[in-house]
Amino acid sequence: MNPEASLIDSALRSWKTNVDRTTKLFSALTEEQLLEQVAPGKNRLIYLWGHLTASSDALLPLLGLSQRLHPELDFIFIANPDGHSQNLPSGADLKRIWNEVNDALWTAFSNLSGSDWAQRHTAISQEDFKLEPHRNRFTILLGRTAHLAYHFGQATLAPQR
Amino acid sequence: MNPEASLIDSALRSWKTNVDRTTKLFSALTEEQLLEQVAPGKNRLIYLWGHLTASSDALLPLLGLSQRLHPELDFIFIANPDGHSQNLPSGADLKRIWNEVNDALWTAFSNLSGSDWAQRHTAISQEDFKLEPHRNRFTILLGRTAHLAYHFGQATLAPQR
Repeated sequence: MNPEASLIDSALRSWKTNVDRTTKLFSALTEEQLLEQVAPGKNRLIYLWGHLTASSDALLPLLGLSQRLHPELDFIFIANPDGHSQNLPSGADLKRIWNEVNDALWTAFSNLSGSDWAQRHTAISQEDFKLEPHRNRFTILLGRTAHLAYHFGQATLAPQR
Repeated sequence: MNPEASLIDSALRSWKTNVDRTTKLFSALTEEQLLEQVAPGKNRLIYLWGHLTASSDALLPLLGLSQRLHPELDFIFIANPDGHSQNLPSGADLKRIWNEVNDALWTAFSNLSGSDWAQRHTAISQEDFKLEPHRNRFTILLGRTAHLAYHFGQATLAPQR
């Protein structure tokens, strides 16, 4: 493997590892357990899972891969804090959507070359990208991997009942 | 910038962003605030900071950059859980050590090329690396960035007093 391919392989593995441990944690919880707060007065587990799902779904257009699969999640899980919306999807629904989004991302990720990853994402103009070439797809991938790890770390703190 | 240099630039920015926000959070806390648990019955902030410091210090030999600067941290912050050791360093001490370790890492990171990052780390043999070429320095960098984000996410949950 040349160095470039090797660097991308590492980043995709890191993404996958974080997705997989997140899947494992949330998928094992009952509907009731998903309603627990991770710490007193903080987000519920179901909110974190929905937030991560919406956030990953938003990667599809941001990376120029496809349209959103589940834009309806944003109102509940991105635009508003936990507790604002009364009609949250069930854990069973979120599990299905989470897997659907991650499958779509993984398939698309696997088709990108090194120069594809180094290209701009769709939220920056061609002109701005000339000045800030680090605002590329790869930076987004790494940022979202850290975002996953950040909330996964919080989810692990929820009391086990 | 060629794609390879661009991928490394993204990863170093991601590392730096996570280091910087961690520095900002912990450095602003008083000695008393650092003794708060992030959630009931969970690690104290001082323990998380020490754990991250020891973990970053351990990157120096793992990536073949230099010897450890502060191996004495491991007994308290890696080998044992929070509450085991009575003589923790003060927040002022940790801040100094944290900055020292991060300065050393940043200087060393800046000198590594793409093919340097794709080389094996020091905890894998040449033979095993042939079979598992993803066990390279870059994978370690990304894994430790996620580790930072994981504990940073936890630290943000501590009650503000």
